[in-house]
Amino acid sequence: MNQEYIIPNAWSIIEEGWKPSQVESSESLFSIGNGAMGQRANFEEKYTGATFQGSYVAGVYYPDKTRVGWWKNGYPEYFSKVLNAPNFIGIDVFIDGEELDLATVQEVTDYRRELNMKEGWYERSFTAHLSQEKAINVVARRFMSLEIDELAVINYQVTAVKGAIRISFQPYIDAGITNEDTNWDDAFWEVEELVSEEHQALVLSRTNKTNFYVGTFMQSELIKNGEHVQYAEHFDKNDTIIRHKAACDIAQGESVTLRKYAGYTSSLNHEHFELFPAAKSVLQKATELGYESLLKLQADSWAQIWAMADITIDGDLKAQQGIRFNIFQLNQTYLGKDSRLNIGPKGFTGEKYGGSTYWDTEAYCIPFYMATKDQQVARNLLRYRYEQLDKAVENAGKLGFSSGAALYPMVTMNGEESHNEWEITFEEIHRNGAMVFAIYNYVRYTGDYSYIPEMGLEVMIAIAKFWHQRATFSQRANKYMILGVTGPNEYENNVNNNWYTNYLAKWCINYTVDNINKVKDGHKSDYDRIIAKTNLTDSEITAWLDVANNMYEPFDEELGIYLQQDGFLDKEIISVNDLSPVYRPINQKWSWDRILRSCYIKQADVLQGFYFFEDHFTKEQLEKHFDFYEPLTVHESSLSPCVHSIQAAKLDRMDQAYEFYLRTSRLDLDDYNKEVEEGCHITSMAGTWMSIVEGFGGLKIIDNKPSFTTKLPEQWNGFSFKINFRNQILDVQVTKTGAQVTLEGKHAQEIILNDEHITLQPQMVNA
Amino acid sequence: MNQEYIIPNAWSIIEEGWKPSQVESSESLFSIGNGAMGQRANFEEKYTGATFQGSYVAGVYYPDKTRVGWWKNGYPEYFSKVLNAPNFIGIDVFIDGEELDLATVQEVTDYRRELNMKEGWYERSFTAHLSQEKAINVVARRFMSLEIDELAVINYQVTAVKGAIRISFQPYIDAGITNEDTNWDDAFWEVEELVSEEHQALVLSRTNKTNFYVGTFMQSELIKNGEHVQYAEHFDKNDTIIRHKAACDIAQGESVTLRKYAGYTSSLNHEHFELFPAAKSVLQKATELGYESLLKLQADSWAQIWAMADITIDGDLKAQQGIRFNIFQLNQTYLGKDSRLNIGPKGFTGEKYGGSTYWDTEAYCIPFYMATKDQQVARNLLRYRYEQLDKAVENAGKLGFSSGAALYPMVTMNGEESHNEWEITFEEIHRNGAMVFAIYNYVRYTGDYSYIPEMGLEVMIAIAKFWHQRATFSQRANKYMILGVTGPNEYENNVNNNWYTNYLAKWCINYTVDNINKVKDGHKSDYDRIIAKTNLTDSEITAWLDVANNMYEPFDEELGIYLQQDGFLDKEIISVNDLSPVYRPINQKWSWDRILRSCYIKQADVLQGFYFFEDHFTKEQLEKHFDFYEPLTVHESSLSPCVHSIQAAKLDRMDQAYEFYLRTSRLDLDDYNKEVEEGCHITSMAGTWMSIVEGFGGLKIIDNKPSFTTKLPEQWNGFSFKINFRNQILDVQVTKTGAQVTLEGKHAQEIILNDEHITLQPQMVNA
Repeated sequence: MNQEYIIPNAWSIIEEGWKPSQVESSESLFSIGNGAMGQRANFEEKYTGATFQGSYVAGVYYPDKTRVGWWKNGYPEYFSKVLNAPNFIGIDVFIDGEELDLATVQEVTDYRRELNMKEGWYERSFTAHLSQEKAINVVARRFMSLEIDELAVINYQVTAVKGAIRISFQPYIDAGITNEDTNWDDAFWEVEELVSEEHQALVLSRTNKTNFYVGTFMQSELIKNGEHVQYAEHFDKNDTIIRHKAACDIAQGESVTLRKYAGYTSSLNHEHFELFPAAKSVLQKATELGYESLLKLQADSWAQIWAMADITIDGDLKAQQGIRFNIFQLNQTYLGKDSRLNIGPKGFTGEKYGGSTYWDTEAYCIPFYMATKDQQVARNLLRYRYEQLDKAVENAGKLGFSSGAALYPMVTMNGEESHNEWEITFEEIHRNGAMVFAIYNYVRYTGDYSYIPEMGLEVMIAIAKFWHQRATFSQRANKYMILGVTGPNEYENNVNNNWYTNYLAKWCINYTVDNINKVKDGHKSDYDRIIAKTNLTDSEITAWLDVANNMYEPFDEELGIYLQQDGFLDKEIISVNDLSPVYRPINQKWSWDRILRSCYIKQADVLQGFYFFEDHFTKEQLEKHFDFYEPLTVHESSLSPCVHSIQAAKLDRMDQAYEFYLRTSRLDLDDYNKEVEEGCHITSMAGTWMSIVEGFGGLKIIDNKPSFTTKLPEQWNGFSFKINFRNQILDVQVTKTGAQVTLEGKHAQEIILNDEHITLQPQMVNA
Repeated sequence: MNQEYIIPNAWSIIEEGWKPSQVESSESLFSIGNGAMGQRANFEEKYTGATFQGSYVAGVYYPDKTRVGWWKNGYPEYFSKVLNAPNFIGIDVFIDGEELDLATVQEVTDYRRELNMKEGWYERSFTAHLSQEKAINVVARRFMSLEIDELAVINYQVTAVKGAIRISFQPYIDAGITNEDTNWDDAFWEVEELVSEEHQALVLSRTNKTNFYVGTFMQSELIKNGEHVQYAEHFDKNDTIIRHKAACDIAQGESVTLRKYAGYTSSLNHEHFELFPAAKSVLQKATELGYESLLKLQADSWAQIWAMADITIDGDLKAQQGIRFNIFQLNQTYLGKDSRLNIGPKGFTGEKYGGSTYWDTEAYCIPFYMATKDQQVARNLLRYRYEQLDKAVENAGKLGFSSGAALYPMVTMNGEESHNEWEITFEEIHRNGAMVFAIYNYVRYTGDYSYIPEMGLEVMIAIAKFWHQRATFSQRANKYMILGVTGPNEYENNVNNNWYTNYLAKWCINYTVDNINKVKDGHKSDYDRIIAKTNLTDSEITAWLDVANNMYEPFDEELGIYLQQDGFLDKEIISVNDLSPVYRPINQKWSWDRILRSCYIKQADVLQGFYFFEDHFTKEQLEKHFDFYEPLTVHESSLSPCVHSIQAAKLDRMDQAYEFYLRTSRLDLDDYNKEVEEGCHITSMAGTWMSIVEGFGGLKIIDNKPSFTTKLPEQWNGFSFKINFRNQILDVQVTKTGAQVTLEGKHAQEIILNDEHITLQPQMVNA
């Protein structure tokens, strides 16, 4: 399972040695991005071996007509596809007229990739042996600027290591790209204009249906012996590709560099007729600053991110590399600057799953962004859902709900549901609860109540309406039930009374009613506005509470556990350890019906509820449920190990906690799920962060105070992390001898550290 | 709902008056076929209005790549599509150079269609007003010969009713046809050869992937005043169409007829290089016999069918028309001559649902064919499944079953599963039980036990293996359960312990073991062969019996009813009568999740079990279950009303029985489901037959004797039907004054007539 080709290193992801079979996996792992755009680590020069090309512009998507076998009423009409965007990295290289292609050269040696996470750049180097007499060495470094987020820089240096050569570079933009993930082979893009001006090229593309305009641009420089080489303007273009040509001779031992400033401007941020001027202005700024300054700025920007977000692990290089990789990728994906964006499941590393927003954001990502960024970033993520409330009401309307009830989409780009399996779209409704939990979590953590009267309460009311309408009163049980759902464990479909869903629904209603009362008391004008807008009556609230107060929770008296759903104990209960390895992963080895009727759990379900509502249950209850459910869990969702790591740590099962931690933190680096070539699991990376901070660090918020219950895996000498708590920084250091928290801030802060209540004074160190 | 444009008539389906909006519906209703081929009632001449073109060759299909949103392990790779075949009916008609097209002519009067079921032909007539001064009358009759089942005949007569005209006919074959039902717009057919010889044309086509070869052929004659008109050979062709041209002048009042002999030869019945010679031989036979003789032969053939299969209803013309339409369509679809064929859900009237074989055949069609044909026909239908046993074992293997366990497909052409919804393909496993029930039913009815040792026992053993492997032992309940199924009521998916499925599984095992013992005792060499082939051991049989003996049956003590599935009573139980009509049909008005969690039943489920195993339950039990389930049933499956009609008759609920009878018998004629334009519901037509014979006629077999418990709806003066019982004919006459059964046969036959045991002597009449 463990590919183990990534070389352990504290700050870099490193691959050494040329293995064509690893190209696609590495294209995922070495991806770069800056929140506004990103790309897989495709080669600049031509490569005829197996590759998965991917460049992505945040917020730009295509509504691909839904593909299903038999249409069912209520299906969304399209699936939002993440679009492969025009390629601006391309540099074809000709050595004495022969095109460089690692798939066909005589030999490749000294092949190395490095993703330098500390400074935010990616470099690939190799020696290509073209013949007995001719070899070149290439060092290609590139980065996507955090400083100028429409800019990428590529520095492609070639050295003639054997023989003198004539080298010709053809930097190009290719707008004739396609998606791997397409339902009907639609053309996603139209090319509107291709322009070449001196050493610049600009291409204007437009997405079909959605009419996003994207300007893709490049400007090239040729540098030899540190000097810019003047070269004649040559270019050619066809309908979709525009290429420049720059050639020169180099002697053995000499180097020449093709440097490319490139990037995207998009109609999300500019009028479409401004896209070329905006591109030119980016290029002007870039060339004025120059490569070295830009690289320095990049390192500075990343240093700022790391200053807040870094986690150190002492004594376990692979664990250290894992957590930094996760933090790095999250920051490459989403920086919280733009409330229209969100955290796609594959970020900028692949197309799979489409859409940009799952419940992953609310359930797994919010804590990371709350604690490692200004709290405005988490607020932006919440605001994103508020701004899509109307669409969530429309989604619910398509399924027959009314009066402003909302069902947030399973996956979306713009608020419209765009998943297309009935058992998910129509039934995996627990996602609605995560929206409310995130609000609760945000207020609990940041202390910023203002979000609720301003925006959150409307979301909560719409969701409470949904739960009320969605519940069924069982006369037999004299209880409300929620029938026909899919829980977080997607290896069960259309079950009745998924405990997690029922519990969350009940909690949502109660929390909403609490906040209606709070807003009524403390924010009267907001209250009046919201009541007027939602037509909410006391009798409706009474009806909600009737549902919440009489919600059925499947529980087994004999085992003393909540049942994942009705009938769970009728299954044949055999622990995963007793399941033959030939059947695993079951999602690849078993037919769907066999998975469904088995007891195996894809990801935390009941335990997810215990994670959200830790304070509702005793440690004994947690232990009992962990002991029952974990052995049945196959963790075939990337979102499973992190929650289990946290729960294991709480139960002092440190070996298990450590094992789950490794699995979540190195899920992609070690390719546990055998699919990393499709892209990285971005949202679960926030779960990795939680494993450290909430698991080993034991962070929770008790009465507005951060509380830490620290646990050190025996494999580690120590670990440290920081959190931004209400605009002050708490620096947590855990070693074999104890734990300490340092405050970087201006005001005293009460904390609880391993059950001890402490008041931290600014700059004071506590042990 | 009731379109009510079909004019009631005892022997014909008649439409009068030109309504373009009815064209597609009538194309379905006036379809013709002869078991080997069939076609919708498309116009011969050009028609630019809305039309759904369809011509079909039995057994010829295309495996269309499965279309689903997200692939699940075990999915079949393709869906077998019913193929629109080359069009041989086409006759373009030009009047003084202007092409006849009912969509564009000045006016259409005297428009009439008649499907003469007694004689087996279809005729369309109309007057087309081309201008103030010019009008023609057309009478186009056609039939598909039962005598020569590769032959169709079209007699297209034009009369100049106003003005003298020059008329030009262009009879053609168009092999450039497409399917409406296609997943990916694949080309289903390739044209291999187009040949014109004198007045004959032949086209050789080949289906992609499956490589069926079909020869489509025609030969034309021009007849004026009863005389053949010689006309010069003119033709043209392109890649897919070949057309002839025949023109002549006619005076006002004169008529001219273009007669076309046409049809298909296929590689199912000939080597592909023999298709043209075979076609020529059909044409030679046809032209030698001539139109009038062929028409006479057609009427004779149908007279033979009706002599056995006719049902008369006295005093209710619409009911009479309904039952004859059903019997007629069944005979057009399948005549039992070829054990490779089966009864497609739309027969030769449309493409929808693909495939040719559902469990409908075993559950609904076998009784009709057993009682109205030689018993060899039903045996052929059973043999069809025997011959596909290997494929059923493969199907089960794809889902993880082993050791020869078989899962028959939900839909197939060649034995391979070709449905593609997981909740059907993987879960609607009750279909397996219908295979065994049909064997039981066949032996019970025909007394032909030989099928079991020869073929049936192998099928039963493979199915018993499946049930054994598919059951789960619930430690809690100390019972075997069947988890994760879809019952006959497809408005529930992935439920646990569907009573019908569990009951059927248990019965299958018991019946199989009984027969293993019987075959062991009475057919030792068959027994030895089968045991050797199946590796069956006593311990395996013991394990099966453990499952059967300890099968869980969901039952509610308080109501005293078997529950459709676990948890059914947790639903909100509101009878269909109390459901707002704006929500119906729910499959068009509600989202899928809402349907699933509602209590509404698509078609008989528990009551289907009571229908199959009538003798296992008391009338009181039936009544209780009928009273509980029927009010929750929306009958949105065509297979629902027939079973309910029979059950209502048994309970003396004659008004309900009659209402359900009308609904099943006129489902298509009155378009209850608002979809008749897609084709007719062929398999449910056999259910209509059952409503009369088993419902109002009360036929059941008790100890090898036919028993009749007759019930006359008060709307009728009487009804009659015949059954072939073990090669003797029983003619049942029911009137307001009583019932009588007449024997046409050579041997005395014991029967039970309304509880009276009677021995019928040949030709003796009993009252």
